[in-house]
Amino acid sequence: MLTSEIEHYLREDIGYNDVSCTLVPDREVNAVIFTKEDCILAGLDVAMSFFDHLGIDAQTQHLQGDSLRKGDVIFSLQGSSISILRAERVVLNFLGHLCGIATLTRRCVDTVRKFSDARVACTRKTTPGLREYEKMAVIAGGGDPHRFNLSDAVMIKDNHIKMMGIEPAILSARKKASFTQKIEVEVESTGDALLAAGLGADIIMLDNMDPDAVKDTMASLRKAGIPEHVIIEVSGGITPENLEEYARTGVHVISMGSLIHRSRWVDISLEFM
Amino acid sequence: MLTSEIEHYLREDIGYNDVSCTLVPDREVNAVIFTKEDCILAGLDVAMSFFDHLGIDAQTQHLQGDSLRKGDVIFSLQGSSISILRAERVVLNFLGHLCGIATLTRRCVDTVRKFSDARVACTRKTTPGLREYEKMAVIAGGGDPHRFNLSDAVMIKDNHIKMMGIEPAILSARKKASFTQKIEVEVESTGDALLAAGLGADIIMLDNMDPDAVKDTMASLRKAGIPEHVIIEVSGGITPENLEEYARTGVHVISMGSLIHRSRWVDISLEFM
Amino acid sequence: MLTSEIEHYLREDIGYNDVSCTLVPDREVNAVIFTKEDCILAGLDVAMSFFDHLGIDAQTQHLQGDSLRKGDVIFSLQGSSISILRAERVVLNFLGHLCGIATLTRRCVDTVRKFSDARVACTRKTTPGLREYEKMAVIAGGGDPHRFNLSDAVMIKDNHIKMMGIEPAILSARKKASFTQKIEVEVESTGDALLAAGLGADIIMLDNMDPDAVKDTMASLRKAGIPEHVIIEVSGGITPENLEEYARTGVHVISMGSLIHRSRWVDISLEFM
Amino acid sequence: MLTSEIEHYLREDIGYNDVSCTLVPDREVNAVIFTKEDCILAGLDVAMSFFDHLGIDAQTQHLQGDSLRKGDVIFSLQGSSISILRAERVVLNFLGHLCGIATLTRRCVDTVRKFSDARVACTRKTTPGLREYEKMAVIAGGGDPHRFNLSDAVMIKDNHIKMMGIEPAILSARKKASFTQKIEVEVESTGDALLAAGLGADIIMLDNMDPDAVKDTMASLRKAGIPEHVIIEVSGGITPENLEEYARTGVHVISMGSLIHRSRWVDISLEFM
Amino acid sequence: MLTSEIEHYLREDIGYNDVSCTLVPDREVNAVIFTKEDCILAGLDVAMSFFDHLGIDAQTQHLQGDSLRKGDVIFSLQGSSISILRAERVVLNFLGHLCGIATLTRRCVDTVRKFSDARVACTRKTTPGLREYEKMAVIAGGGDPHRFNLSDAVMIKDNHIKMMGIEPAILSARKKASFTQKIEVEVESTGDALLAAGLGADIIMLDNMDPDAVKDTMASLRKAGIPEHVIIEVSGGITPENLEEYARTGVHVISMGSLIHRSRWVDISLEFM
Amino acid sequence: MLTSEIEHYLREDIGYNDVSCTLVPDREVNAVIFTKEDCILAGLDVAMSFFDHLGIDAQTQHLQGDSLRKGDVIFSLQGSSISILRAERVVLNFLGHLCGIATLTRRCVDTVRKFSDARVACTRKTTPGLREYEKMAVIAGGGDPHRFNLSDAVMIKDNHIKMMGIEPAILSARKKASFTQKIEVEVESTGDALLAAGLGADIIMLDNMDPDAVKDTMASLRKAGIPEHVIIEVSGGITPENLEEYARTGVHVISMGSLIHRSRWVDISLEFM
Repeated sequence: MLTSEIEHYLREDIGYNDVSCTLVPDREVNAVIFTKEDCILAGLDVAMSFFDHLGIDAQTQHLQGDSLRKGDVIFSLQGSSISILRAERVVLNFLGHLCGIATLTRRCVDTVRKFSDARVACTRKTTPGLREYEKMAVIAGGGDPHRFNLSDAVMIKDNHIKMMGIEPAILSARKKASFTQKIEVEVESTGDALLAAGLGADIIMLDNMDPDAVKDTMASLRKAGIPEHVIIEVSGGITPENLEEYARTGVHVISMGSLIHRSRWVDISLEFM
Repeated sequence: MLTSEIEHYLREDIGYNDVSCTLVPDREVNAVIFTKEDCILAGLDVAMSFFDHLGIDAQTQHLQGDSLRKGDVIFSLQGSSISILRAERVVLNFLGHLCGIATLTRRCVDTVRKFSDARVACTRKTTPGLREYEKMAVIAGGGDPHRFNLSDAVMIKDNHIKMMGIEPAILSARKKASFTQKIEVEVESTGDALLAAGLGADIIMLDNMDPDAVKDTMASLRKAGIPEHVIIEVSGGITPENLEEYARTGVHVISMGSLIHRSRWVDISLEFM
Repeated sequence: MLTSEIEHYLREDIGYNDVSCTLVPDREVNAVIFTKEDCILAGLDVAMSFFDHLGIDAQTQHLQGDSLRKGDVIFSLQGSSISILRAERVVLNFLGHLCGIATLTRRCVDTVRKFSDARVACTRKTTPGLREYEKMAVIAGGGDPHRFNLSDAVMIKDNHIKMMGIEPAILSARKKASFTQKIEVEVESTGDALLAAGLGADIIMLDNMDPDAVKDTMASLRKAGIPEHVIIEVSGGITPENLEEYARTGVHVISMGSLIHRSRWVDISLEFM
Repeated sequence: MLTSEIEHYLREDIGYNDVSCTLVPDREVNAVIFTKEDCILAGLDVAMSFFDHLGIDAQTQHLQGDSLRKGDVIFSLQGSSISILRAERVVLNFLGHLCGIATLTRRCVDTVRKFSDARVACTRKTTPGLREYEKMAVIAGGGDPHRFNLSDAVMIKDNHIKMMGIEPAILSARKKASFTQKIEVEVESTGDALLAAGLGADIIMLDNMDPDAVKDTMASLRKAGIPEHVIIEVSGGITPENLEEYARTGVHVISMGSLIHRSRWVDISLEFM
Repeated sequence: MLTSEIEHYLREDIGYNDVSCTLVPDREVNAVIFTKEDCILAGLDVAMSFFDHLGIDAQTQHLQGDSLRKGDVIFSLQGSSISILRAERVVLNFLGHLCGIATLTRRCVDTVRKFSDARVACTRKTTPGLREYEKMAVIAGGGDPHRFNLSDAVMIKDNHIKMMGIEPAILSARKKASFTQKIEVEVESTGDALLAAGLGADIIMLDNMDPDAVKDTMASLRKAGIPEHVIIEVSGGITPENLEEYARTGVHVISMGSLIHRSRWVDISLEFM
Repeated sequence: MLTSEIEHYLREDIGYNDVSCTLVPDREVNAVIFTKEDCILAGLDVAMSFFDHLGIDAQTQHLQGDSLRKGDVIFSLQGSSISILRAERVVLNFLGHLCGIATLTRRCVDTVRKFSDARVACTRKTTPGLREYEKMAVIAGGGDPHRFNLSDAVMIKDNHIKMMGIEPAILSARKKASFTQKIEVEVESTGDALLAAGLGADIIMLDNMDPDAVKDTMASLRKAGIPEHVIIEVSGGITPENLEEYARTGVHVISMGSLIHRSRWVDISLEFM
């Protein structure tokens, strides 16, 4: 995390005149950060950035993505009591939020694994300012981060197709994209899926199709013999509740904005020893 | 919102080489942003900051805090198609997240109103970087933002009391706090609540007490005749599910981190006309 | 102090091509910073931020707020000669300015103490960019920092009252303010002071009243039996010269913009050993 | 002024939750900014930056450096009441501070003009963060800004001379300085002044000499026939009180840190019409 | 370009006390920016950012990538003389540098086109801070920007292979990369190229091979029947001088750091009318 | 280099999801940075800023400005393999670019030295964002950095003279410039050169004159007996190719934008040991 970001987050929580920290003597103390719920661990690096910045010694036995049980200690801390009090809220807010995302992701991945080896991916529906950290939490949960921003891969969406037609849009993209970028096309019908595959799309995203329509499209694509490297993704309205049905369709990637926008914070605490 | 923040959020979503925006001609278009669920509106100013920055004309019939029905239009937009496409994801991410908080807050406020006029407040458990916007969303929902940071008011917490004793901590705070700041004391027993009130605390926060213990403490405080301006707050483990019980206790303020960390995004969409 | 601020202040003084620092060999040296006038010490933390950033070892025997005599050493420094030469001007500018404020504040506090235990407070008339440091210097001098910004407490000023009427303004503020914020009302007559007290203001500020008018208003308020926790503040045109008269009025707080805008720098020097 | 600086100064004064601005309706209003004391005007551009940023129309009849009488209107403003209330304190703090510097500078320049056409210059003793604006205020007052930072010109100071000897230091500077930079040498004796002149210094600064010593040195330098373009500056301990004596010595430049560190704010007010 | 970047570049050139701009009256003027050499146009958007920021009206008849002849006017400007003088140097520095890159790129693309439709790409050898603009200039010249940073695509380089072995490295990358990212493998032998292709690399980069070795490897790969979507890139030591030989090898992409690090500025001037 | 700049440059090259660095284990390694061509060393401090920031131990036997032979080691590095991989490209890009400038500068200085001791200076034609580093590279090469920005010295250019006339422009500049600044006048004829010298210009810049015209002007100026401290500079269209002719003219300073805009990167590599 950039120095300026660390300082920005601390300043947001501390303000300019924290009287409470002057009430107690500053002394060397020990503390632990532990989880009050089972969860998947994420945000380790983020937390370490704050500890390093504030000169707090932090030890952990765990790795990003570890499965923790209620009561497990995430960090053992040693340092100035004022520094630890100042790091506390910001670090716990990050950990609670990011572990929540990793935990929901892992649950979704586990659901899918029963039926398929499809990847579970998040989308660009991320909390403003935190995309990098949230996508890393999805990875910690076993998910795929999808593209980080509009420049990572070229996605031809419904609006592009409406304005251009699908064929001109794909041909234009193939010309304008760097050879290092994949081209993804969002389609709403089996016909467009076949067309996109034929025109050289690397990824075909089936948008807002119900599981049966997805299955039909997959069958048509297989029958048409599309190249092996073409990836079929499904997206739109997929939640932990209906995930199983999509997992059974045989697609390669299942994208869920809900990994982030329906996640809840894990309850994580700091306690002085 | 600061110019640098607007640009930071846009850059996070766009990156450095957005090929997709070069696929279509840039032209003047109309679009609407509407909600796909009933919700309480928040984030109006945040959205307007992006529209202003990008030269998009945005009209709205609504105010922060309005109660919207599924299908209601939040903004009518007119502007360059590329600008609207670039604002789309960031603005929707803000609106979805903030309306989610306002909506949950309003639901909790409505629950409380059946029994009491207690304020429903959020806490410092906020998403890093977004505290200002999330607290404004709580206000839009009818809640109280509580203090924005450690410097806004002086709160004497369990760790201070452990290290200092309650009486020295309060006396020290009264000396060190500005006369413009309130002093809040976090207590875990009726005895400490009475002690804090006697020593001049402005706000007494009953921490992690169950509803019955809260009621008992309220009775003791009333009996002891604490000054009228002293505010009793309850906090710790309060959720939409157990809120009613706390609303019946007669406290003045009910604080819930869950207004933010259990909220879900409202489903809000942008559509070209 | 934020890293970016430290670097900003250093860059302001150094520029991009400091030839003078290449004229001499860089070597480990000792130096002292001492005061050439009696003063109250402020800015210790600010100075330490620069020394830490530049890797200079700085020792001090003093605390923020200490009363120093002409010739007293504030810091003993050890480090690279170039680093010390680069820190010199910025650190001395901060110390001279902030000790000047602390010294004037202490003088005013001492004047008041002869007659009353009223607090001496500064205002929002602070040097742009330095409010945090100047308010800390006022605290070092024994003063009260007053609110740090418009969001710290709610102040209803003459313009609000003109536009709204005093009663609606106070009622609106009570509804809109967080329960963690105090409400202060600026009044110009005894009648309004009584009205504000009756409507639940936490702080009543008597604006631009002469000492006799203040005394009369205090008498009326006492006679009306306003609640004990209500604080009476006087502000407007109070200088070190007329301070004694206000100190005799019995108000709780005396606010003086002049603590900052009439202060003079203390003459502080750095000398190589 | 940079956008980020404008926003930084506004944020410092406003904070995150300015309830007071929600108490009154936002409407188009007129206001004036006027001086309550005779003064020299400075900070016009700084003030305009804030008005432009906030969309406030500001008209002025005056120029930087104008001599104003008590009651003179500096700006006539028209704009949103909330915007004007938000600009008010920051703009007045800048104007009060900068006009104070310009006014003291003009007074010193006028004192000098009775005896000589020497320039009155400030030094690097400036308020951290505000050097640019303070130096512009000195120019408004008729003074010379001296160098803005260590890189603007090469100054060989006492510490350089102690470590290197005066001759090697000057020779090294002549080699290392860009041909676009002047070389200034700080001397404490007539002998060193002559030596520096002989070695090609562009500016010779007589440091901490009393007026008689300055006169003697000037006589020796004239007698030695130093080149016409060499400038003689005097600096160290010069105040408005002893300025006349230095003005009589015939030096070309009189430098006074006190232009800034002994200035007092001019009392400037904003009033709604 | 971000507001903060625009202001940073202007500040770099202007500094804090530009006396020269006060020598002339500020008035509305017309000016043109024209090229003194044949060139390919790049940097149009960059230049417009500065004109917009400074309120200068700028008209152009040209598009990014246009082929200009000596004397062609790039921009017709109208605005304040001081604003134009302040934009002048920064804008010309950008245009000269970026048109230089576009011009060299176009020359290389034209060379390649005689023999093949291979893409000519730049690399990560770009001027620090200017990668975005330089890559856009390469695109203007008809080249491919390659990846913008380490996160855009996964490249397995010699050091990775040394430490891991080629097979484990590719398998690990396929697992860890997002499905939206291509995987590129840098190889130094025909054997490794075949191995990488077999393991599912999307792009195979032949590193530092001479043209004959490249031809042999291409033949082997064709013979082995690697999938059609696999892209063969050649990189390392390719200059405008030896480019033709590589263009004859039949590779799909020719990468040249020299597009940037051997380019020369085009001579572009601003003239007042 | 400022922390924010270091982090900005690293972020530009790394992005948000560098999968490649997760492919290999992070371990302590040794590496060297060496030059593959003879060159003059520049950018040492810049490189050290990155190594320090990333905790890489870097040792060097060389100084800024040293003449290196092909194969010479510039830095021996020890540190985390991931940190070194992340620093690699940014540091090499800086070193390649800056050594290229220093090397061309040294070649030009050596050319001039055969005929004269004139200084070889660069101009304000520098890569946006890198002026400070490029000017330091010119110094490393033995050149003169000329002014860093418009505020360093006052230059009266053709446009000022067109609008004001040469005499009023110089007189105005003498009044408005600080006594610490030199005044430079750009002239296109011998007559104007004489006029400028007579009016007190410190530097006279002969703009776009051919070598013979320069010689004639020099002769006229000598004959007119201009003061010894006045510096004659020649600028405009001077390249390494025609430099010798200008070196023979006897001017004091030869300014060449081409030191920067015609330089080529030196080929510098990093190799793990």
